[in-house]
Amino acid sequence: MPIYLDNNATTRTDPAVVAAMLPFFTEQFGNASSAHAFGSEVAGALRQARRALQGLIGAAAEPEIVFTSGGTEAINTAILSALAVQDGREEVVTTCVEHPAVLTLLDHLEATRGLRIHRIGVDHEGRLDIDAYRRALGPRTALASVMWANNETGTLFPVVALAEMAHTVGALFHTDAVQAAGRIPIDLRATRIDMLSLSGHKLHGPKGIGALYLRKGTPFSPLIRGGPQERRRRGGTENVPAIVGLGKAAELAAAHLAHPHGAVGDLRDRLEQGVLQQCGGCTPLGDIAHRLPNTSNIAFEAIEGEAILHHLNRAGIAASLGSACASGSMEPSHVLRAMKVPPRALRGAIRLSLSRETTADEIDQVLGVLPAIIDHLRASPPS
Amino acid sequence: MPIYLDNNATTRTDPAVVAAMLPFFTEQFGNASSAHAFGSEVAGALRQARRALQGLIGAAAEPEIVFTSGGTEAINTAILSALAVQDGREEVVTTCVEHPAVLTLLDHLEATRGLRIHRIGVDHEGRLDIDAYRRALGPRTALASVMWANNETGTLFPVVALAEMAHTVGALFHTDAVQAAGRIPIDLRATRIDMLSLSGHKLHGPKGIGALYLRKGTPFSPLIRGGPQERRRRGGTENVPAIVGLGKAAELAAAHLAHPHGAVGDLRDRLEQGVLQQCGGCTPLGDIAHRLPNTSNIAFEAIEGEAILHHLNRAGIAASLGSACASGSMEPSHVLRAMKVPPRALRGAIRLSLSRETTADEIDQVLGVLPAIIDHLRASPPS
Repeated sequence: MPIYLDNNATTRTDPAVVAAMLPFFTEQFGNASSAHAFGSEVAGALRQARRALQGLIGAAAEPEIVFTSGGTEAINTAILSALAVQDGREEVVTTCVEHPAVLTLLDHLEATRGLRIHRIGVDHEGRLDIDAYRRALGPRTALASVMWANNETGTLFPVVALAEMAHTVGALFHTDAVQAAGRIPIDLRATRIDMLSLSGHKLHGPKGIGALYLRKGTPFSPLIRGGPQERRRRGGTENVPAIVGLGKAAELAAAHLAHPHGAVGDLRDRLEQGVLQQCGGCTPLGDIAHRLPNTSNIAFEAIEGEAILHHLNRAGIAASLGSACASGSMEPSHVLRAMKVPPRALRGAIRLSLSRETTADEIDQVLGVLPAIIDHLRASPPS
Repeated sequence: MPIYLDNNATTRTDPAVVAAMLPFFTEQFGNASSAHAFGSEVAGALRQARRALQGLIGAAAEPEIVFTSGGTEAINTAILSALAVQDGREEVVTTCVEHPAVLTLLDHLEATRGLRIHRIGVDHEGRLDIDAYRRALGPRTALASVMWANNETGTLFPVVALAEMAHTVGALFHTDAVQAAGRIPIDLRATRIDMLSLSGHKLHGPKGIGALYLRKGTPFSPLIRGGPQERRRRGGTENVPAIVGLGKAAELAAAHLAHPHGAVGDLRDRLEQGVLQQCGGCTPLGDIAHRLPNTSNIAFEAIEGEAILHHLNRAGIAASLGSACASGSMEPSHVLRAMKVPPRALRGAIRLSLSRETTADEIDQVLGVLPAIIDHLRASPPS
């Protein structure tokens, strides 16, 4: 059986999620907006899913959840809405290490609308420069958008405190929690976060579904306009099977988070420490003490990460060079460059991302293979 | 077994479509952008789905297909793109009877950006005023957006000719083909249609997936920006299971359309003629000679359509008052008002929409029930 350690790119849909979705394709297949029995029976299922997701992130009320087609749509919606509802505020504060769903859109808005974008840097451990963040906020700031957890290193940003700071200048605060939701406890009631984006397929739910949390009272402008679905905040026939699947995934994730022992973190530490002990010339990247429990990004000096991945793949182990969204480009990761990872290590970084499905046996198998791959590559002349 | 005659709201996902999707949830669940085996094995499935959809609509090349989260997103993308890529052209020509995915967005753009929107009217049979359409086109027209088939009456608009006219003034042409795709033959190669929107769940594919056809060379600006997916035209992790499902649905629809006898149209005619013969005081609405083969919209004089639907629903038959997107509002349909259906008939119109799954036996059952419901309602005093 292949070993999947690329859960920050996507996760396996939990079989219980698929089972929950199945009746909504061929049996309860009605349009939730329809008045007849085929429609009304799915409306209840949508409510239950919304409540499950509400529970996972500690939203105060069901209507704060807006279902979208995924994390990228949620993020685009949040950013464009914040700008649309705040005339006269034309600056955005964000970070250098956001996901392309944030950075690509902001680059476009900067180029076409003349918005001013403040991209706050990070230190060698990937920690945000909080002073620079505070200084960048001002009366013209429409939005601060900062990720909860970095997709490449797992580094956690102090978004609860950052949201408080944004509010002192009257700006809205959005967090991309695509990697955080379902992996660490989130309770939005206790925060001043106005908007949060998440994605189903990062938490063992289906692809093609996500959600935007929109705190009650937050001014809003929809990205996709059409029918009155989602309280007129997102047009389009509800993706009932996927919404039901996301609800089930949220339930399962909440149950897993409530479990007392942090199995994923223990396995990640065992993997990382094993690698560090057995392979010389390698360093874990990111804020080691403050990161997602499932992520390890390790830089191997003087080796190409591509070559490591190639050999791992041949051994039936899937890992990643960094963000899957940037793969194929061969450009070193913007996250690791922002951290000023030395050139000698930059190209040899690989990301190992676990899930609640990862087993101790799998970790042992990886530890039985990876050091030999590193030795082999270091012994081979570069091609 | 309940009888489902609301296929213009949504269709049952074909069990063969669900079967095609299933392996992509729990087995081939990789992110298509990932370099390892989990990723590369899904890339081939995406290509096959794109080719199937290309075949259904007669697109000249695979890259002309951009997958979206559904019809509404595709339509919003087409309209906003056409405006973004044509500076100085700030008028849109459309019709009074479009779906809310078009009209709600255009109303918003008119109110907030000062665009000029020309909404062309229809006659009593729902036929477009072609002269008014031609007169509305001009050097400031960015886009003409006209639906291929109306969702409430099934009336077909001559979009191929309308696209030619739009090109004479240098405007782009988009058609909402959400109701047409998979139900009538479409061959875009022979047309000058620049953009076409379609939806998976109207053609026995899954909800939450659709596509925008974008003719090669058409200038384009994305709605959702992020990773480089869909050739940088639509960011976000590909919804692999749903794309595979849409591909399978396109294959099945193409096979059905290639079949020589038009079974759906025959059943619709049998239903409609049976109703007209057995019930007095009713009229079929729309352009009877030029409409979708699956749709019948019948106005019963001096009865509330809501009451008919209620009794049909109790008899296990699902139909609709018009567009599912407008249900709950109790406002008479904007389509039927544009057709100047007399007040006496306006509130008594119901839509019966069949699919390739509808059987002769089901039609006979409806014909055994509906006339008695009409008699009963006409004999009862209004509440």
